[in-house]
Amino acid sequence: MSTATILARIEELAAISEDSSCLTRTFGSIAFIKASQVIMGWMQEAGLSTRIDNIGNVRGRLVSKDPEARTLVFASHFDTVANAGRWDGPLGVLMALDVVSAIETDLPFHIEVVAFCDEEGVRFHTTYLGSKVLTGAFDPQQLEITDAAGITLGDAIRLIGGCPDQLADDQLPPDQWLGYFEIHIEQGPVLYEKHIPAAIVTAIAGQQRSQLVFTGMAGHAGTVPMAMRQDALCCAAECIVMIEQWAMQHREKVVATVGTLQVVHGASNVIPGEVVCSLDVRSADPEMIKVSHSELLQMLGTICGKRNISFEWNIVQETLPVTCDAELSGLLEHAIQSTHMEIVKLVSGAGHDAVAVASVAPVCMLFVRCFKGISHHPLEDVEPKDIEAALQVAHAFIQQLIR
Amino acid sequence: MSTATILARIEELAAISEDSSCLTRTFGSIAFIKASQVIMGWMQEAGLSTRIDNIGNVRGRLVSKDPEARTLVFASHFDTVANAGRWDGPLGVLMALDVVSAIETDLPFHIEVVAFCDEEGVRFHTTYLGSKVLTGAFDPQQLEITDAAGITLGDAIRLIGGCPDQLADDQLPPDQWLGYFEIHIEQGPVLYEKHIPAAIVTAIAGQQRSQLVFTGMAGHAGTVPMAMRQDALCCAAECIVMIEQWAMQHREKVVATVGTLQVVHGASNVIPGEVVCSLDVRSADPEMIKVSHSELLQMLGTICGKRNISFEWNIVQETLPVTCDAELSGLLEHAIQSTHMEIVKLVSGAGHDAVAVASVAPVCMLFVRCFKGISHHPLEDVEPKDIEAALQVAHAFIQQLIR
Repeated sequence: MSTATILARIEELAAISEDSSCLTRTFGSIAFIKASQVIMGWMQEAGLSTRIDNIGNVRGRLVSKDPEARTLVFASHFDTVANAGRWDGPLGVLMALDVVSAIETDLPFHIEVVAFCDEEGVRFHTTYLGSKVLTGAFDPQQLEITDAAGITLGDAIRLIGGCPDQLADDQLPPDQWLGYFEIHIEQGPVLYEKHIPAAIVTAIAGQQRSQLVFTGMAGHAGTVPMAMRQDALCCAAECIVMIEQWAMQHREKVVATVGTLQVVHGASNVIPGEVVCSLDVRSADPEMIKVSHSELLQMLGTICGKRNISFEWNIVQETLPVTCDAELSGLLEHAIQSTHMEIVKLVSGAGHDAVAVASVAPVCMLFVRCFKGISHHPLEDVEPKDIEAALQVAHAFIQQLIR
Repeated sequence: MSTATILARIEELAAISEDSSCLTRTFGSIAFIKASQVIMGWMQEAGLSTRIDNIGNVRGRLVSKDPEARTLVFASHFDTVANAGRWDGPLGVLMALDVVSAIETDLPFHIEVVAFCDEEGVRFHTTYLGSKVLTGAFDPQQLEITDAAGITLGDAIRLIGGCPDQLADDQLPPDQWLGYFEIHIEQGPVLYEKHIPAAIVTAIAGQQRSQLVFTGMAGHAGTVPMAMRQDALCCAAECIVMIEQWAMQHREKVVATVGTLQVVHGASNVIPGEVVCSLDVRSADPEMIKVSHSELLQMLGTICGKRNISFEWNIVQETLPVTCDAELSGLLEHAIQSTHMEIVKLVSGAGHDAVAVASVAPVCMLFVRCFKGISHHPLEDVEPKDIEAALQVAHAFIQQLIR
């Protein structure tokens, strides 16, 4: 294998889509089944013992002769978002295959290359289905959840040939894990701006997702004087600017984003009476997420009080940060040094399967530079020379781990 | 007639709706036809010569013996917005009928009470259909415009029994107008806050309605650091706060409202790449609307430049302010003085049929206090004692005009 092979396979997978006009390959679709067969074929070519497990993960093992050996899982995912880029997920699977296919020595541990079935969670709004099965954290109650067409997850599993009752058998028991390694595109602009091909991930940020509701008083845009208004949108706007300023002040530790905003019953000639918006705060430091909530709550409350606007802050979802394993990350750092690349350490603001795995095993991740940091978009792109550089690091990392 | 009769008739009209759950009576609906018949009956009871013209205006004349007499049009509208209040429009028609039915002397001019068919413009998105026909300003090309069901205005006119070819015959020629008088609820909170029943309208504000488009760069809410973002929503929010501050500084002369805002392809975990919002600026001073455009354009441009956000300002609609006639308004002021009520002069931020009439005749308007300034809402309300007070003013005004 080589970078050229990886590039060709990226193209081959990008053509396997449930939508002819763009790349979309969600859990359980026909495109998903086709892609899993193609990936299994490549794993077999690489000399791995392959199978597709009950949830749809494609798994290939390179087995150690040591009967006591534990397993290094070397993985990424092959599902996509809607109208996706071609690199998010598949690049990590294909690079893992490249690295593993080059191993010629006896292994002191097993390596299992896994192409996870559902990292994005597009169809059932559940992330990490594949890695949760692998770690044994899958909750069977989730089999009852339905997609937009009303099909349950249980039925979707049966339709791809899996058996929902046997998901527990697909677990890699906690005592058999050596560790977890994933290569993934950065999905952010830091490496692009720094002109560096790859970086060590030190942590995956925790996240607090909230709904903010501002309630004022609707009125006629022509007849209510400026000084008598309770404009919910002007209030929300002042709060959004305040959130941005606060996050800029703490930018080494946090990102905060208002991504959606609805003016309820909005019309150009009506003073906004109610505004609902989202707030997404992420940090590698769990304390920082608590601090963001308490400080922003107070600052936003002051703005709303001054404007006579009532205000609700509803927390919708909260996940704790995950710290990557110091020992594995140290090996990764040595591997980078051996290639004479500058060391860059990043916090991943995006979630990854490593979040699910971290509860049972030490995890580490290598990020690869992507074009302008663009991801979840057809313009997502990766330079061949960056793949080449990251491959060198990954090969060195595995060789160190073997020694 | 009396205030009690007016209140009973308001209730009777409020029950004539195309929606059983609320009051909605748009141009050409069955409810509209029923209401026009009921109003014509009341005009006949008041001794007027009645007819429904081709566009659907209900018209009742009290005729002078002077063959050279001109006509005072005393009017308001009987169509409503969706989920409307019961007072916006009908109150002015019923008060006109009360005043006219009390006239016992010979008239030196004709009086025509008109219940206009379409002031709100809900069905065909065209305001002032009725008053435009009365003034001769109706554009026959509008007969081709369609409603949401694809029915043309021409067909809608035929369905209510009108003849689209004869609309020009319904004009009151410019040389026959003495003037125009309309009583309407304020639809704003000024009189409510001042505890005063009625006010003279000095002008109807001009309006500039625009679309503002902010284009930045979408990105992953978790992976793009704060300092590297081009967040279109944060930029729009800063601009909205700036627009509000500017309008507050000029609040004696202007109101400005951002009533709608869309985050294009918004999602809670995506940095907003594009935001589109509306801007509605109104002033009685045409110069002020020009100034608002040039000053805000510069200030918003500075904000967008600083944030590296591209910015478009598209003017969607522009109407010039209308000044009420000094002589008629002077008579109205005397009439108010004769009732010992405090004189309040207001600029109407909302449009009225007087806007269409002002191009052919001198206009004046009397506003009646409404509950908390609420309008276009089922909570719209008017106190009987305010109707009583406004009726005294209107009677005095007509008596002065007769003398």
